[in-house]
Amino acid sequence: MTSPPQANGHAHHIAPLDASLLTIQRAETLKPVPEPGTYTFGDIKTDHMLVMTYDPVVGWSAPQIKPYGPLALDPASNCFQYCTNVFEGMKAILNPDGTPCMFRPVDNMRRLQSSGARMALPPFDADALLTCITKLVLTEARWIPAVPGHALYIRPTLIGTKPSIKVGASDHATLYTIVTPVGPYFPTTTGGVSLLAVGEHVRSWPGGTGGFKLGLNYSPGFVPQQAAAVLGYDQVLWLIGEDKQITEAGAMNFFAVVERDDGGLNIVTPPLDGTILPGITRDSTLVLLHAHAADTSRKILDLPVDKPVYIEERILSVNELAEWAKAGNLLECFGTGTAVLVVAVERIGDLVGADVKQVRDIEMKAGRGLGPVGQALWDKLLALKEGRDEFAGWSVKCE
Amino acid sequence: MTSPPQANGHAHHIAPLDASLLTIQRAETLKPVPEPGTYTFGDIKTDHMLVMTYDPVVGWSAPQIKPYGPLALDPASNCFQYCTNVFEGMKAILNPDGTPCMFRPVDNMRRLQSSGARMALPPFDADALLTCITKLVLTEARWIPAVPGHALYIRPTLIGTKPSIKVGASDHATLYTIVTPVGPYFPTTTGGVSLLAVGEHVRSWPGGTGGFKLGLNYSPGFVPQQAAAVLGYDQVLWLIGEDKQITEAGAMNFFAVVERDDGGLNIVTPPLDGTILPGITRDSTLVLLHAHAADTSRKILDLPVDKPVYIEERILSVNELAEWAKAGNLLECFGTGTAVLVVAVERIGDLVGADVKQVRDIEMKAGRGLGPVGQALWDKLLALKEGRDEFAGWSVKCE
Repeated sequence: MTSPPQANGHAHHIAPLDASLLTIQRAETLKPVPEPGTYTFGDIKTDHMLVMTYDPVVGWSAPQIKPYGPLALDPASNCFQYCTNVFEGMKAILNPDGTPCMFRPVDNMRRLQSSGARMALPPFDADALLTCITKLVLTEARWIPAVPGHALYIRPTLIGTKPSIKVGASDHATLYTIVTPVGPYFPTTTGGVSLLAVGEHVRSWPGGTGGFKLGLNYSPGFVPQQAAAVLGYDQVLWLIGEDKQITEAGAMNFFAVVERDDGGLNIVTPPLDGTILPGITRDSTLVLLHAHAADTSRKILDLPVDKPVYIEERILSVNELAEWAKAGNLLECFGTGTAVLVVAVERIGDLVGADVKQVRDIEMKAGRGLGPVGQALWDKLLALKEGRDEFAGWSVKCE
Repeated sequence: MTSPPQANGHAHHIAPLDASLLTIQRAETLKPVPEPGTYTFGDIKTDHMLVMTYDPVVGWSAPQIKPYGPLALDPASNCFQYCTNVFEGMKAILNPDGTPCMFRPVDNMRRLQSSGARMALPPFDADALLTCITKLVLTEARWIPAVPGHALYIRPTLIGTKPSIKVGASDHATLYTIVTPVGPYFPTTTGGVSLLAVGEHVRSWPGGTGGFKLGLNYSPGFVPQQAAAVLGYDQVLWLIGEDKQITEAGAMNFFAVVERDDGGLNIVTPPLDGTILPGITRDSTLVLLHAHAADTSRKILDLPVDKPVYIEERILSVNELAEWAKAGNLLECFGTGTAVLVVAVERIGDLVGADVKQVRDIEMKAGRGLGPVGQALWDKLLALKEGRDEFAGWSVKCE
């Protein structure tokens, strides 16, 4: 909370974000909730949304839950002109007793703060926002699908609304949250996703913004994504540099599992060097793998006891994947993210000539669905998210 | 214009952008026009704006000039979530007979098309948009300041409005144009701008989007810009790579002028390698310099006849600038852009140690204001923009 002294000597009160001021204006008529399985990711609008605004003179407004509807913004707003837009992705899932739960929500709030600071947006109290989001989830509880693999996806969004085209930071902001019921992210893919390795377009770079969850990290990928689709691939595997280092897969973090000569499994993922998103599912995956590796009975994850795992956060290139596949050691690759949880990488199209159409597929020894490690992580993470299992207090009840 | 056949065999009509459908709804009361010199860049809202929308089923709506006011957009809109936002900067200036003129407006329209395509936004007819923008300028003609160095700044903006948080291209769009009367971009700087050379944050990258005019290229610079301001510099000089290659200066293209041993001047600017904006003022500067160099009487620009100019588009590093300055050969540096036209670089803070506060200033031999080349370009470009001079049909009357 900022209270700078003013020229007249009086302290000027800049209001912090205060969850106790939350008001709820309920929609007069409620929409019908569609049957799970009848919608694709992100298309359904629920009855209510959460909105608060920041003004540099008065500070944060009282948070409002109100009927879902359009935002009215000056066309000169910073968010349109210079893309000061950051967001989070979270899910609310019903636990076995029917209580909505969120997964590591404090981590999402911290990352939203970090993303907002990178865009020079006004700061906010993370606890207060989480309290308000929890209230929104409870208000929209009837929208949470009671179907395995489904969830109420939560999208907190912070945008700069300074109404001036002068190039510079936005000292006005709107912080809002919308929710939408979702099923599996890739409904048309039974086994997993195919990836085209792309180095011509670069998603992020050292000194860039790939380590933050900014809206602007995503749209530069749309044209390469469309080009990959034309060649028959679902998503792009983003590379950087002449040695074809892997950064991310589509909008997911990337893992490869390699069989060792001693019967163990090396699980490799790129490090948090500022070019990749510090994914919360990525972190959960690493924590679970380390816990499993450290557990002498190896019972954290449902993996064969004679397959010890070794975790490596290190630079990883698509050339290495090709070599491992050639040697018959590339067991599986998978992507992680809030929207997908864990998704198998079916195959990776690797450009082997100067002509973009000369693509050779890297195949996985475990086949096209989830391999043993991806499946064990899926099972464990879903159980934790659905509140059927417990680990480190990650699942938090909405109450 | 796209007319794909439909499943039933009938051609489906996707409406192109059609300037003949433009309607004008005038504001009921007009705002007072403020005195030039009383406002800073980008703050004033005029009476009207130009708006048209794209829907994938019907195509482009009829363009509308209507009272300036907020845009109402779904909070799930692609522009908020994934930053599919592109824009242009143009100026309308009164020529000596009082007719509003624009400078190379077709080039702005082409660049907006190119930027929109990079963001996978719906295509539009550039001639039709320019016709509508011309009509907006004429509608807002009373806002064009009749003061030298002032102009009506024009901001065409194209944003993705698909109302879904699914990561992917926007098949809905809003294309709008606002205008604002402006004075000099850097009103607090009498001579020019000071630059802090920054390599820690990188504005653009090979395979990135620095070669397009995307909103998302600007906001990552706000935090470094604030840090530069704390150290007493107006703007950032963006570097890339260990050899400290210069890309852009703030939001401008960068030029250095070096004295040669033979009495001539080398004018050096980074090449269009995809990491810098293809600035229209940059291009005009290069065309004028080449025309001057090729003109045996050397009368295109007001430069000493005994100072022939040699133009180099090549990779340029801040280390080279430091060496030239040390040798006493760095005559001047300047930035170019629509908002600033030509602005002197007063000094460049170059990081010489590991500690960010160890900054050594590179000074210009010509001093802190515009040197002879920058001044000659300023004079020529302003005369062309104000319609007092003519070159290659660059100044286009609004009629």
